[in-house]
Amino acid sequence: MNLTVDVNSDIGESFGVYKIGQDEEVIKHITSANIACGYHAGDHNVMHQTVALAAKYGVGIGAHPGLQDLPGFGRRKMEVTPEEVYNMTVYQVSAIQGFANIYGHRLQHVKPHGALYNMAAKDRSVADAICQAVKDISKDGSLLLFALAGSELVKSAHYAGIKVVEEVFADRTYQPDGTLTPRSQPDAVIHDPHVAVTQAIQMVREGLVTAVDGSRIPIVADSICVHGDSDHALQFVQMLRRALSEHRINVKNPTGV
Amino acid sequence: MNLTVDVNSDIGESFGVYKIGQDEEVIKHITSANIACGYHAGDHNVMHQTVALAAKYGVGIGAHPGLQDLPGFGRRKMEVTPEEVYNMTVYQVSAIQGFANIYGHRLQHVKPHGALYNMAAKDRSVADAICQAVKDISKDGSLLLFALAGSELVKSAHYAGIKVVEEVFADRTYQPDGTLTPRSQPDAVIHDPHVAVTQAIQMVREGLVTAVDGSRIPIVADSICVHGDSDHALQFVQMLRRALSEHRINVKNPTGV
Amino acid sequence: MNLTVDVNSDIGESFGVYKIGQDEEVIKHITSANIACGYHAGDHNVMHQTVALAAKYGVGIGAHPGLQDLPGFGRRKMEVTPEEVYNMTVYQVSAIQGFANIYGHRLQHVKPHGALYNMAAKDRSVADAICQAVKDISKDGSLLLFALAGSELVKSAHYAGIKVVEEVFADRTYQPDGTLTPRSQPDAVIHDPHVAVTQAIQMVREGLVTAVDGSRIPIVADSICVHGDSDHALQFVQMLRRALSEHRINVKNPTGV
Amino acid sequence: MNLTVDVNSDIGESFGVYKIGQDEEVIKHITSANIACGYHAGDHNVMHQTVALAAKYGVGIGAHPGLQDLPGFGRRKMEVTPEEVYNMTVYQVSAIQGFANIYGHRLQHVKPHGALYNMAAKDRSVADAICQAVKDISKDGSLLLFALAGSELVKSAHYAGIKVVEEVFADRTYQPDGTLTPRSQPDAVIHDPHVAVTQAIQMVREGLVTAVDGSRIPIVADSICVHGDSDHALQFVQMLRRALSEHRINVKNPTGV
Repeated sequence: MNLTVDVNSDIGESFGVYKIGQDEEVIKHITSANIACGYHAGDHNVMHQTVALAAKYGVGIGAHPGLQDLPGFGRRKMEVTPEEVYNMTVYQVSAIQGFANIYGHRLQHVKPHGALYNMAAKDRSVADAICQAVKDISKDGSLLLFALAGSELVKSAHYAGIKVVEEVFADRTYQPDGTLTPRSQPDAVIHDPHVAVTQAIQMVREGLVTAVDGSRIPIVADSICVHGDSDHALQFVQMLRRALSEHRINVKNPTGV
Repeated sequence: MNLTVDVNSDIGESFGVYKIGQDEEVIKHITSANIACGYHAGDHNVMHQTVALAAKYGVGIGAHPGLQDLPGFGRRKMEVTPEEVYNMTVYQVSAIQGFANIYGHRLQHVKPHGALYNMAAKDRSVADAICQAVKDISKDGSLLLFALAGSELVKSAHYAGIKVVEEVFADRTYQPDGTLTPRSQPDAVIHDPHVAVTQAIQMVREGLVTAVDGSRIPIVADSICVHGDSDHALQFVQMLRRALSEHRINVKNPTGV
Repeated sequence: MNLTVDVNSDIGESFGVYKIGQDEEVIKHITSANIACGYHAGDHNVMHQTVALAAKYGVGIGAHPGLQDLPGFGRRKMEVTPEEVYNMTVYQVSAIQGFANIYGHRLQHVKPHGALYNMAAKDRSVADAICQAVKDISKDGSLLLFALAGSELVKSAHYAGIKVVEEVFADRTYQPDGTLTPRSQPDAVIHDPHVAVTQAIQMVREGLVTAVDGSRIPIVADSICVHGDSDHALQFVQMLRRALSEHRINVKNPTGV
Repeated sequence: MNLTVDVNSDIGESFGVYKIGQDEEVIKHITSANIACGYHAGDHNVMHQTVALAAKYGVGIGAHPGLQDLPGFGRRKMEVTPEEVYNMTVYQVSAIQGFANIYGHRLQHVKPHGALYNMAAKDRSVADAICQAVKDISKDGSLLLFALAGSELVKSAHYAGIKVVEEVFADRTYQPDGTLTPRSQPDAVIHDPHVAVTQAIQMVREGLVTAVDGSRIPIVADSICVHGDSDHALQFVQMLRRALSEHRINVKNPTGV
């Protein structure tokens, strides 16, 4: 048996003079990069630099479209129509695609950000709008969609015939129905890095996660989402990579690089 | 002899609830459309509608990138580095290209807007940055650049090996050195539509324009820029089209449609 | 008996080159002006002009703070914390107050806009945040709050000890519980101007409105909200003013001007 | 003889999730705070927190209005009319004044930021627009204006009858005409903290600065501008404060606190 998993992270979230994250470091430990597109974070200069960075390290280049809400970093739910979701996705994905093309690369994937990600995970009309955009942008069907494992967005992608990469979180707990425990609840985040790594390994090896009630539920772990915005986060990524290596799990991005 | 000229106009400049221009009307009388890309005007919804409109009427779809200055409509000169000009051009052109692709169209051209247009006409470093962006975006060299006839941007495009379409203005007067009379001067604008039409016809037929000092100077008139933001402007376009027709000048866009 | 009512309208919603509304006309027919503050509409230039216009016509100058969402005109509900609502209210109200001071005027009132208005009408935490801001800005308690008649915002204002002006709509239908019929329902808007005028007169004279189910419910009509964004809307305002006059209802703003 | 000088710094430049500067530390070492107002940096939440911080430490609360250019941090020169400068100043100063009022404080001063500061130092029409705004906002004349020592803005303030505080830089070199050496030149910045401190002390004690050509020129040093965006910068401020103390120079803000 030869297990493989992708490791992805959000990067390129700086804006103007404002620096955020440790992109130069985290890029070395991941296989797919979700790059902000100027709506919730990032700007055209940062996008260019970040695409160049991802190209240099051979990391899969992904669009990370978000709501047009820089003050709220795209984390605040907004009332947007499916038509608007479609258009904001086409706009942002196309913009980052332009930078990738300059470096001779195709865009590997699209992963919605923040509130858009959460809305797409639960609201089928938002999910469908994103899938339609991905489908229309990528006429040859090569563009992948990253989505919360088991979410409405995964279902929508299957229905639309789009290739979907299901992503899991090492440091979040799961509910018996497979959804993430909301951050408003005390046990939402796994603070012990050893427990988080163990959960990640289990999800990849067994296709299972132990929910907060102790039940074991099936989960598809195509990609593990990690953070790179602190030294602490970076240390965790390295620890996770070592554990994956010890369990002989290959870390590659979905296009096989 | 078989003379041909393109007629272009700026459209898609509405934003959110704010409507500007009479795009539905002007589109019928032009062959190339310069579509705002969300920086100085336009938004993702307007861009989608406008690209669909251009596609419906068989009009050449062009990107109209501007400075990131919605409050000033991209008309205020800003201190921007060539690197920044390059990146803002890639971003905006790629975004509109995404919408064109959805309708099975390639982008026909790029025409900088407002202050960016004026800066590129005079400042070679700005011109070069735009040309480099166009070249890098369009690896097969099919993407055209619209530029003020005789400007630095035309020279830069020639140097870079980019196909350039030189544009003239029917209703603006010219200086002996071929530049437009600045709007700050009283005789900058030609208010009599008959005089404006006559100037346009002369530029296309003879490759000449009569400057404000009476001298006749050579000018390349590949495309005539018209406005569509008022009933008055629309009437002028129709008058111009009739005159071009009477002089047996074909009106086609540069890709021959 | 001497009945009095205020007539208010949203103005100053233009932005940069984008013009909206017929402020120069509508200002003549109203007694209170709700002026956009640069978040959902308006900019510092428009605000200055609009305050000057209101001052010239002796109309009560009001702040019309909205969500920071120019692309959506502040009409899209957003997830904002009460703390954020408080701060956005202080910011916008203070900014417009600055312009009013220049003309020797005090701000008469605050009326939240769009989604913020609707959220404040139903969500007590949003309402409380706005009331706290009004209270803190106006230490002498002179600043009025305009709120949907009978809404949570009215209750919150009463609780906070803020002077509140309850506003009604001539052209909207009411539910038996006193709320407006949502625009998503077919009978939300009264299209017949005569019916709308009759409803307005009834609300002012009798303190009653006939709900969609035929029941007559009590309503406080301190101010009638009118629109000025079309010729049609302007004609309605004039018709309403004539009817108020015929019924010997004084039209004055709440500060008695 | 009893010498006094103010020490000021730009703070409150964070935006949304983006943190910049070490405001909590720098506030302890300064007597006047220039607080960003949401145009080039800062947002309503950051403004509130920063005003509260300044109030807590008894530091003079100042408005730091800038160009409406968040992507460029207000550092890029833009073509703005004097009318626009006036309006952007009124808007931003009034907004921060609102937060100061909540804490029972009056605004101490206005200091333009970045490109606006530089434009006001050289362009009299920009300087005059700012002075007019300060004058109109502060009818009792109590609001101070911070300006580059010897600049056009100082002259404009004198002409307008506004109280002006002339500010000097410890770590910048001066030209024989009293202007700052442009940053484009190699000797613009003084990197040796001891030299910078010595220059500052000389400016305060003797009212003189040694220009790059060795000539000694008169300079008015009412306030010294310091930075707080790095550990290095913070150490310099502490070193400067010690030196001022050793030379028995009182450090107080212009309102005498």
